[in-house]
Amino acid sequence: MPAALVLHGVNLNLLGSREPAIYGRVSLAAVDRLIREHGRKRGVRVECRQSNHEGQLVDWLQGARGERFMGVVFNPGAFTHYSIALRDAVAAIDVPVVEVHLSNVHAREEFRARSVIAPAARGQISGFGPQSYVLGLDALLTLGVKRGGHSR
Amino acid sequence: MPAALVLHGVNLNLLGSREPAIYGRVSLAAVDRLIREHGRKRGVRVECRQSNHEGQLVDWLQGARGERFMGVVFNPGAFTHYSIALRDAVAAIDVPVVEVHLSNVHAREEFRARSVIAPAARGQISGFGPQSYVLGLDALLTLGVKRGGHSR
Amino acid sequence: MPAALVLHGVNLNLLGSREPAIYGRVSLAAVDRLIREHGRKRGVRVECRQSNHEGQLVDWLQGARGERFMGVVFNPGAFTHYSIALRDAVAAIDVPVVEVHLSNVHAREEFRARSVIAPAARGQISGFGPQSYVLGLDALLTLGVKRGGHSR
Amino acid sequence: MPAALVLHGVNLNLLGSREPAIYGRVSLAAVDRLIREHGRKRGVRVECRQSNHEGQLVDWLQGARGERFMGVVFNPGAFTHYSIALRDAVAAIDVPVVEVHLSNVHAREEFRARSVIAPAARGQISGFGPQSYVLGLDALLTLGVKRGGHSR
Amino acid sequence: MPAALVLHGVNLNLLGSREPAIYGRVSLAAVDRLIREHGRKRGVRVECRQSNHEGQLVDWLQGARGERFMGVVFNPGAFTHYSIALRDAVAAIDVPVVEVHLSNVHAREEFRARSVIAPAARGQISGFGPQSYVLGLDALLTLGVKRGGHSR
Amino acid sequence: MPAALVLHGVNLNLLGSREPAIYGRVSLAAVDRLIREHGRKRGVRVECRQSNHEGQLVDWLQGARGERFMGVVFNPGAFTHYSIALRDAVAAIDVPVVEVHLSNVHAREEFRARSVIAPAARGQISGFGPQSYVLGLDALLTLGVKRGGHSR
Amino acid sequence: MPAALVLHGVNLNLLGSREPAIYGRVSLAAVDRLIREHGRKRGVRVECRQSNHEGQLVDWLQGARGERFMGVVFNPGAFTHYSIALRDAVAAIDVPVVEVHLSNVHAREEFRARSVIAPAARGQISGFGPQSYVLGLDALLTLGVKRGGHSR
Amino acid sequence: MPAALVLHGVNLNLLGSREPAIYGRVSLAAVDRLIREHGRKRGVRVECRQSNHEGQLVDWLQGARGERFMGVVFNPGAFTHYSIALRDAVAAIDVPVVEVHLSNVHAREEFRARSVIAPAARGQISGFGPQSYVLGLDALLTLGVKRGGHSR
Amino acid sequence: MPAALVLHGVNLNLLGSREPAIYGRVSLAAVDRLIREHGRKRGVRVECRQSNHEGQLVDWLQGARGERFMGVVFNPGAFTHYSIALRDAVAAIDVPVVEVHLSNVHAREEFRARSVIAPAARGQISGFGPQSYVLGLDALLTLGVKRGGHSR
Amino acid sequence: MPAALVLHGVNLNLLGSREPAIYGRVSLAAVDRLIREHGRKRGVRVECRQSNHEGQLVDWLQGARGERFMGVVFNPGAFTHYSIALRDAVAAIDVPVVEVHLSNVHAREEFRARSVIAPAARGQISGFGPQSYVLGLDALLTLGVKRGGHSR
Amino acid sequence: MPAALVLHGVNLNLLGSREPAIYGRVSLAAVDRLIREHGRKRGVRVECRQSNHEGQLVDWLQGARGERFMGVVFNPGAFTHYSIALRDAVAAIDVPVVEVHLSNVHAREEFRARSVIAPAARGQISGFGPQSYVLGLDALLTLGVKRGGHSR
Amino acid sequence: MPAALVLHGVNLNLLGSREPAIYGRVSLAAVDRLIREHGRKRGVRVECRQSNHEGQLVDWLQGARGERFMGVVFNPGAFTHYSIALRDAVAAIDVPVVEVHLSNVHAREEFRARSVIAPAARGQISGFGPQSYVLGLDALLTLGVKRGGHSR
Repeated sequence: MPAALVLHGVNLNLLGSREPAIYGRVSLAAVDRLIREHGRKRGVRVECRQSNHEGQLVDWLQGARGERFMGVVFNPGAFTHYSIALRDAVAAIDVPVVEVHLSNVHAREEFRARSVIAPAARGQISGFGPQSYVLGLDALLTLGVKRGGHSR
Repeated sequence: MPAALVLHGVNLNLLGSREPAIYGRVSLAAVDRLIREHGRKRGVRVECRQSNHEGQLVDWLQGARGERFMGVVFNPGAFTHYSIALRDAVAAIDVPVVEVHLSNVHAREEFRARSVIAPAARGQISGFGPQSYVLGLDALLTLGVKRGGHSR
Repeated sequence: MPAALVLHGVNLNLLGSREPAIYGRVSLAAVDRLIREHGRKRGVRVECRQSNHEGQLVDWLQGARGERFMGVVFNPGAFTHYSIALRDAVAAIDVPVVEVHLSNVHAREEFRARSVIAPAARGQISGFGPQSYVLGLDALLTLGVKRGGHSR
Repeated sequence: MPAALVLHGVNLNLLGSREPAIYGRVSLAAVDRLIREHGRKRGVRVECRQSNHEGQLVDWLQGARGERFMGVVFNPGAFTHYSIALRDAVAAIDVPVVEVHLSNVHAREEFRARSVIAPAARGQISGFGPQSYVLGLDALLTLGVKRGGHSR
Repeated sequence: MPAALVLHGVNLNLLGSREPAIYGRVSLAAVDRLIREHGRKRGVRVECRQSNHEGQLVDWLQGARGERFMGVVFNPGAFTHYSIALRDAVAAIDVPVVEVHLSNVHAREEFRARSVIAPAARGQISGFGPQSYVLGLDALLTLGVKRGGHSR
Repeated sequence: MPAALVLHGVNLNLLGSREPAIYGRVSLAAVDRLIREHGRKRGVRVECRQSNHEGQLVDWLQGARGERFMGVVFNPGAFTHYSIALRDAVAAIDVPVVEVHLSNVHAREEFRARSVIAPAARGQISGFGPQSYVLGLDALLTLGVKRGGHSR
Repeated sequence: MPAALVLHGVNLNLLGSREPAIYGRVSLAAVDRLIREHGRKRGVRVECRQSNHEGQLVDWLQGARGERFMGVVFNPGAFTHYSIALRDAVAAIDVPVVEVHLSNVHAREEFRARSVIAPAARGQISGFGPQSYVLGLDALLTLGVKRGGHSR
Repeated sequence: MPAALVLHGVNLNLLGSREPAIYGRVSLAAVDRLIREHGRKRGVRVECRQSNHEGQLVDWLQGARGERFMGVVFNPGAFTHYSIALRDAVAAIDVPVVEVHLSNVHAREEFRARSVIAPAARGQISGFGPQSYVLGLDALLTLGVKRGGHSR
Repeated sequence: MPAALVLHGVNLNLLGSREPAIYGRVSLAAVDRLIREHGRKRGVRVECRQSNHEGQLVDWLQGARGERFMGVVFNPGAFTHYSIALRDAVAAIDVPVVEVHLSNVHAREEFRARSVIAPAARGQISGFGPQSYVLGLDALLTLGVKRGGHSR
Repeated sequence: MPAALVLHGVNLNLLGSREPAIYGRVSLAAVDRLIREHGRKRGVRVECRQSNHEGQLVDWLQGARGERFMGVVFNPGAFTHYSIALRDAVAAIDVPVVEVHLSNVHAREEFRARSVIAPAARGQISGFGPQSYVLGLDALLTLGVKRGGHSR
Repeated sequence: MPAALVLHGVNLNLLGSREPAIYGRVSLAAVDRLIREHGRKRGVRVECRQSNHEGQLVDWLQGARGERFMGVVFNPGAFTHYSIALRDAVAAIDVPVVEVHLSNVHAREEFRARSVIAPAARGQISGFGPQSYVLGLDALLTLGVKRGGHSR
Repeated sequence: MPAALVLHGVNLNLLGSREPAIYGRVSLAAVDRLIREHGRKRGVRVECRQSNHEGQLVDWLQGARGERFMGVVFNPGAFTHYSIALRDAVAAIDVPVVEVHLSNVHAREEFRARSVIAPAARGQISGFGPQSYVLGLDALLTLGVKRGGHSR
């Protein structure tokens, strides 16, 4: 059974209690259950991890191939806006990465509209709450089938 | 049966023949069939329209409520980067709009990473070829059910 | 009886229903009545037109002289911020143009404070709701009498 | 009888002799007569003051309520472009302020198009010579009646 | 007999009456005669079209191949400076496009020196009045023969 | 017989061997022959000079009038982007100068799209390989006849 | 008994009535009492002055040494963001100056985060309402004792 | 007995030996003693921690509520200028945070004047050496009592 | 006997005691004596005034003609960098103004190299200590004789 | 007899014929006579040189000490705005350099207000036509006597 | 035997497999062998460490003196472009640091040309693949001997 | 015996006397001896040239292949920061070029950190005084052997 890795970046462990007007009231555990359940329907095992440490996220991305994940659904949190280290990690690995965001990053502070990681990812999904992860997983599965001629 | 509107912006009628390295080799008609078929599975009638005229797109967005569409999946094409008219149209209507892009706009020329429309949309999906529309439709259906506390 | 042209740009047909906190609850038809009535008091016939199409607005501006309008009161809507085409049309015609805005464009998003059209207009009035048009018409009538040495 | 305050900022005492190609040949005294006469027609007493001192203008703005002025028509002159002190004074008082300019500030040096004060004012009128003040007074009277839902 | 398409963008229908100090006193009809006559000498049929509508110009560019034009001489007018839609249309079609301008765009307002369309065109000619079109047609004929190794 | 001066700036002596993907495979000598031959057809003697020294190019521009050249076709090479000295030389002399480029400078690195010299030239032609010079010579001859009302 | 000078800049005389959501509801007189009382506990006489005139504030700063103040607690108000005159006055005198702000200037409009005066002050305290002054006085007393090796 | 958390960010463990001209000659241990002693006088237990790891600091901030700290005095060191992760952590927790700096960050390199964290903190104190922490603790105690209407 | 006005701007009354490494150790009184003495040699009465108040300097500039000064030597101090009010005053009067600076403003902080006043002055002299005023007076006398064709 | 070197940069040999509205109608030879004559009055031999070659000017600056010039009056012409090579040459030599300009560089194109050379010179004089050189020579003689505490 | 520390930053553990077109096909282990072998020839023990964790690299830099390393050859990887924490660590320690890069950082994306760390290092070497480390070690040994008067 | 070319750019002939705090006290002749001696050890003949003329340096670079140099070690001096002519010369030739600097260009004025030439060179070495040349020669010899997959 194929497996996908879901990586939650910095501060996402606070989900449900942190600024609910922006990030919603669902806890991270509930989000993980939602994604895993959706994976099950699609025939994919989903493993979810969270870290507040940039280096840990780099390590997990680098290990994705060795751990035989077919792809990564990645919400870098605040690292989105400055971590070129994560960008290079995404670019360095063969495993496809889909960047997701709970909130619509284009409708908040100016600096949140810019992702330094997205240029290295396959695509980006933002604004749909926990469903952003579900859509990200679907996107990954589609990429798995056939990628065609779309620019990276 | 609920209905969703898919709007293709400028130059998307050339899909399949235009810069296939970036936009793929599938024609717009084929993309429309793909979306409509997906809609059928989800129990949604999908209507697809394309225009190279900014004003026409404004008119269609404004009419979405009167035509009783539950939402709009919108790929503005090049208008993404300068049409504040379309941004204001999206902000002016009650019908939710999801912005989609075939290519990963973050991995191309600098100016393509910036959408002047996205701040008024519910969310943005980019980089998955024709599947971006399919994911956009799914996102819309999710929004339809319940939106919760996610910032706009 | 002299005549003045009032041009409403993109999305202004939604007036009254669109973001009432910003644009007020008066419909465009009511605004037009208000302006025409004011024109009558001043002895000027007022013709009001609206379009969401930049090209249509260019055409109307170009035709203002042929249609013997003494001047134009122009609210370009979102075109204010990027339509150099409209700027050039305003600069190209002999008929004086007064730019008006319902809301105070200086008190909103940064980009709304900048008009690419205003450098070609005679002056600009913003922030007074429908009265901006009425004041614009008065301004036009004043210009009609004598313009004097004020820089353009 | 209600009263309105007209404030002329820095260098406006030179009106009529200063760069007439830009500011016209009418003296400040004549402009004041014009405004007062217009006020009389509208049933409003108009008091006109001029100062080259930023602090004096701040004091007058702060005192507008105590002096029972119904509003202020304010041409800050060169202070328009850098006096955040005047902006904060306008924001701090309850009395509505309308910013006016003799010349079309959008058609001159780049820096003149930007007003740091306008975001705190109710609206802005520029480009109509001495009539800018007259229109500003009319705008104020309109605001006095009812302001409605227009964003500040 | 091969055919070339000449496209005049927004406001060029006013040629001869619009700001003659900048654009000259020759009417568009006269310019078209000049180009057609030059084409005849070179053995090329020249078809000239003008529109103030961005979408119409996109449509004509897209249709150039179907209408069997060997190339396009294109003066986008004010669209030059912001219409990414036209840039993408030029990039999307196989037919070579030469961008031309009547005035020297580098010797006017700062923003006129920048063309968002030129990166997608074969080359750019500006500053020679109606002769810019004639030179553009010659350039096109040269390209037709052999393009060689010059970067696009 | 009237004479025109063709000036090649820095590194153009390497033409044919330098980055042929950008600049083509034709040597400078061959280009000079092409231009001279075209001049002969037009009844103009063409003199071609090249230098890698900015000061030498300034000297030649300054001497163009004394040497009785009717005009200059000038490809400044890399000096295009920073030599205000050459700009001032072009502005200082009465002899008309046409700026030409082999490659489409708008389709390369960002900084190549900007010419500090062009604001002082009559016009600019770029993107047509050696034909850029030929077109530049034609442009010069046109200017020689009559310049009319086109802005500089 | 040593003495400290507290300077309130422009618009601070409105404290308590001006934008209470930002600046609180305590009047300037009450703030002055609070600081003086705190000074008494610390054995320092505190003198408080306010002016809306930049030049007056410069004069007071220049006179601080002659008046034998041991230091200045200075809230420049809106002058913070542009008055290089006040910056130079602070730099010109030997008396140490501590800059204070009622509100957190980093959490408001972009331009409020930047102080042109702070580079010349000893330090800056912002965000604690009237307590910012109290803390500023304490900071001054600490500096009075010994300054050590901390960079200015 | 209430408790406060003092967090020292990256490189602060070198205090006393690192660039003493800027940061002084007092060791971190001595600074911690100073703060703890001050806390004792105020009836607050103070716990001091230092880390060079951004993720560790995020973890400690997130845990502040669970550990029942009444507030945090935080010197992020170099993280001040780029760690949006720390900004979001500060914004995400209910516990108030006061940002402090040893040196006057406004009087050093340009980039040090800008804090990406301060917009999420209650206030900022900089320039008073180890006393910045002491003042920060006092500020926290003041906030603890009552915060009132000061903007965040 | 003709008279010239020397205006010293903000903080120049501190000359001799203020940052002597930058501004020298000569007092303002001594500088004034130096200039007056130089004036006497040239047959010009020199009147020197200083103010820390921008408005006062505006008043003096405006009055220069009425007081029959042949010209003004003006050191605006810190106002140089932001007082558009002073710029407009200089532009508004017929009396020629020469801007002078004690220090070389180009060799200090970036923002000091930019004068917002200089575009309205006849010329600028900086870097020669008190001699800058003496040279400024000489420059004024030269201008008095004949101004010729040098651009302003 | 002491000697001073006057260096004229690029295009200054055209003086008198080049853009007389900006640079005046006096030839370079006449300017040189004026300066030499002034030098004679002051007891200084003046040697004048001109070059259009940046490298030649660098060589002359480097040789100034060996040739025993007491100082250099330097008008770099267009090199002012980009020649860091000349800046470094000025900084590298012990001989003092005064930068002069015929026109008021602050009242022309934006880029002319910025000198990359001035930070390395002793001072700058601009706007007084040929008298700028005369004043520059006087400035040099003043510097020769005693420089004192004025910042470089 | 003296010892040098080689620090590899984030993602360098992937060397040999990561984007070989940019970083080459040699593994990190092989690079380490190459450096150690070169160290042996020079009589220096070389210790090589790699981490994806910014904090770990800070710790190692801080410990370099305690571990008696004579210097550090440091390739920060992506941290080069934003880690002010690493810059401050380099500045804080007495041990000299040489920054090295495998690729020519000036020939890639714009942001890679800028190092926030280099201002604190002794020098920078980039573009020579694994030999960059070898050259860096040689540079360190040279610095060890004598540093002389070269600016930092 | 293979030969390498060392090119010293503008002002480097002053080495040893020019700003020794930045560039050291060793003369250029001594530096050349050092490099030649090092070359002898490596079996390479080294030829050293210096010029203050940009054009001369272009000529030497262009001639490097004809003169059979295996590579160039190039210190452009101040040309580093603006000479696109030298960048294009480096890019145009097949001979590899290594850019070197005596001082650490990243630790000086902002503009010195940016090299317009480096993107065309193989690599850059800065900060090691005369040893930068020696390291540059070693780098060149390494490149000579095998270049591998490192990006340019």
